Amino acid sequence: MKHRRIYLDNNATTPLHPEVKNEMVEAMEMFGNPSSMHAYGREARANVEHARRIVASFIGAHEDELVFVGSGSEANNTVLSLFACASNLCIPGFKARQTIVTTRIEHPCVLETSQCLAHRGTTVRLLDVDRYGRVDMDQLKEFLTDDVGLVSVMTANNEIGTVQDIAAISRMAHEAGALMHTDAVQAFGKLPLHVDDLGVDFLTMSAHKIYGPKGIGALYVRKGTPYCPFIRGGHQEKGRRAGTENTLGIMGLAKAVEMRAAEMEDEAVRLAGMKEVLRKGIEERIDDVLFNGHPEHNMPNTLNVSFPGAEGEAILLYLDLEGIAVSTGSACASGSLDPSHVLLATGSDAERAHGSIRISMGRETTMEDIEYVLDVLPGVISKIRSMSTAYIKGGEHAAAE
Amino acid sequence: MKHRRIYLDNNATTPLHPEVKNEMVEAMEMFGNPSSMHAYGREARANVEHARRIVASFIGAHEDELVFVGSGSEANNTVLSLFACASNLCIPGFKARQTIVTTRIEHPCVLETSQCLAHRGTTVRLLDVDRYGRVDMDQLKEFLTDDVGLVSVMTANNEIGTVQDIAAISRMAHEAGALMHTDAVQAFGKLPLHVDDLGVDFLTMSAHKIYGPKGIGALYVRKGTPYCPFIRGGHQEKGRRAGTENTLGIMGLAKAVEMRAAEMEDEAVRLAGMKEVLRKGIEERIDDVLFNGHPEHNMPNTLNVSFPGAEGEAILLYLDLEGIAVSTGSACASGSLDPSHVLLATGSDAERAHGSIRISMGRETTMEDIEYVLDVLPGVISKIRSMSTAYIKGGEHAAAE
Repeated sequence: MKHRRIYLDNNATTPLHPEVKNEMVEAMEMFGNPSSMHAYGREARANVEHARRIVASFIGAHEDELVFVGSGSEANNTVLSLFACASNLCIPGFKARQTIVTTRIEHPCVLETSQCLAHRGTTVRLLDVDRYGRVDMDQLKEFLTDDVGLVSVMTANNEIGTVQDIAAISRMAHEAGALMHTDAVQAFGKLPLHVDDLGVDFLTMSAHKIYGPKGIGALYVRKGTPYCPFIRGGHQEKGRRAGTENTLGIMGLAKAVEMRAAEMEDEAVRLAGMKEVLRKGIEERIDDVLFNGHPEHNMPNTLNVSFPGAEGEAILLYLDLEGIAVSTGSACASGSLDPSHVLLATGSDAERAHGSIRISMGRETTMEDIEYVLDVLPGVISKIRSMSTAYIKGGEHAAAE
Repeated sequence: MKHRRIYLDNNATTPLHPEVKNEMVEAMEMFGNPSSMHAYGREARANVEHARRIVASFIGAHEDELVFVGSGSEANNTVLSLFACASNLCIPGFKARQTIVTTRIEHPCVLETSQCLAHRGTTVRLLDVDRYGRVDMDQLKEFLTDDVGLVSVMTANNEIGTVQDIAAISRMAHEAGALMHTDAVQAFGKLPLHVDDLGVDFLTMSAHKIYGPKGIGALYVRKGTPYCPFIRGGHQEKGRRAGTENTLGIMGLAKAVEMRAAEMEDEAVRLAGMKEVLRKGIEERIDDVLFNGHPEHNMPNTLNVSFPGAEGEAILLYLDLEGIAVSTGSACASGSLDPSHVLLATGSDAERAHGSIRISMGRETTMEDIEYVLDVLPGVISKIRSMSTAYIKGGEHAAAE
């Protein structure tokens, strides 16, 4: 049992799909610059455009609407930076729309970029969420004044898995004359996404959350939407993103998407089943637990749970010693000792937020893994709680829920 | 002879070094997110930091001074974007230094980004170059008034190979109180570069020009230099560049650097020898040719030559039919019918600029390849010239030189 290793941090990143690995190893022989006119370049160009069609069609987009970028963070920065230009030279129609509406539970790459823009004169309005992490739609209505240029709401939250009603939010944004962006990094390849059903103008994707390589993502930009490149100075991606195309990464992303298209639906059912076993098992075997995130509108692979009286980081480290990898909140915020901004936004107190872990399953997760977690976790929690002088079973924290 | 393929476009991009390929295939098994605290994350973190030490030490930098980014273009945009913030909140000391000095022969990612900044209120001064592409040092002195915040001059030009005296330019920039950046994408791994000898504050590197993967680059930022992230919203790279680290790319870059450290010196001698054979052979076998770029301060692998009366694109395509891959100017500008901005800056007329090709050799280039080019090229040029009604041998164009 000692050397068993179980990876349950698939929202942070995922292993390469074996087919992606094969594709990339093969693609390593193809090295041309897609911008070159000779045979080497034309071969690379053909591969990049083939990949573009695969990824675009997966979300119901036209290939011309897809821009390959280096990460989900870059895609999100690209969208927000449309509003960074004080003079709005590139999108003059939006001169009077210098307000961004987003939520308190976005990824830091949206929140911090918004904050930076706010320092430069952009108005940023942060939507509250309910105890399950769903956007306050009444407040959204109130926020959507005629100075709003962009609404940016993530499809699924990385920490608690809560899924928003993006279609409804898009409709409201458009009625108010604003553009609509969704950071779909966590939902992409896990939930069915169609840009017309969602009604979005921009949609952010990443490869490494769906068994593709790190360092590659894509941004959907609806035809006719105002746009300005973020990384400038090359005609690549039709002038929308400078820099030699990451051909290997692009082909890896496309192969990952192909595999998701084949596996996603069955996987969603399988993961949801295991998640329910995990949830029930934790509830039965451990006293005083609180689940975070929406019970229904949620990712099939994500379970976020608080154990009052046990620090999340301690749980993580004890589980790691048992070969189980989980996370406290998001990998992007780890190293920070601040409690999760997502849990705080759902009304958790700092202690509940500190005592939470995220278990995110993936295509390699088995029922056996879940059983192993259920065997190990109760002992870990009780050991940590027994060391915590402040913890009183069934005390204040449980009552607060 | 028909199916021979010779790649002479190594300034556009390079094939993966076999050792880089091996390293990356092996690294595909390692998938953790370096920001994760568990064993998978720690393993990835250790690999990323090991790679950072290798790359930093190659340019004489401290590992803390190296930021991994997605491309050379991103690195260049990052440096210039320091001056994009009208209020200069992040680097308040530079509030009164809103002028950028750069050259007419920079890569488009510097020139176009500068142009965009100019529209937003930054003053941009473009340095002229002489007929060989070297910066006008008298003009530099004149341009270096006390409102200059940044001087950005590329180490070696991608099209004509001309190498600048970066150390001298840095000294002048610093005397004037400005920061110094060099885009070293073409020089990195081909010429010895040491950040202290060069005296630069920022230095841009890319992997795919030195037999590493596409989609990964690095930016050197001297300790203590004002800095503000370009892609925001994650603590990665010590808060200097958000987005999950491209572990595979980073390890590929480090391996490419290791191989360059071992091969670069001997390669420089070998390539310079072949370049001389190529230059002499062209001169002997083809009438009326003009070489571009500095005859001495030049990259050992790059030969740029004009054939008046023959369009560069026609030469490229005819050579491609013979299995030889060369370029007209830079891959990043190809597809554009504008004459090379670099050649125009050296005083070429549009026709000479249109009639030029860039032959850029690499570690796989052999003497046999050069002989094959010398066998094929004369016929191609005379065929194209014979179709060109405007061409008169030894006419105006040759006389102009």
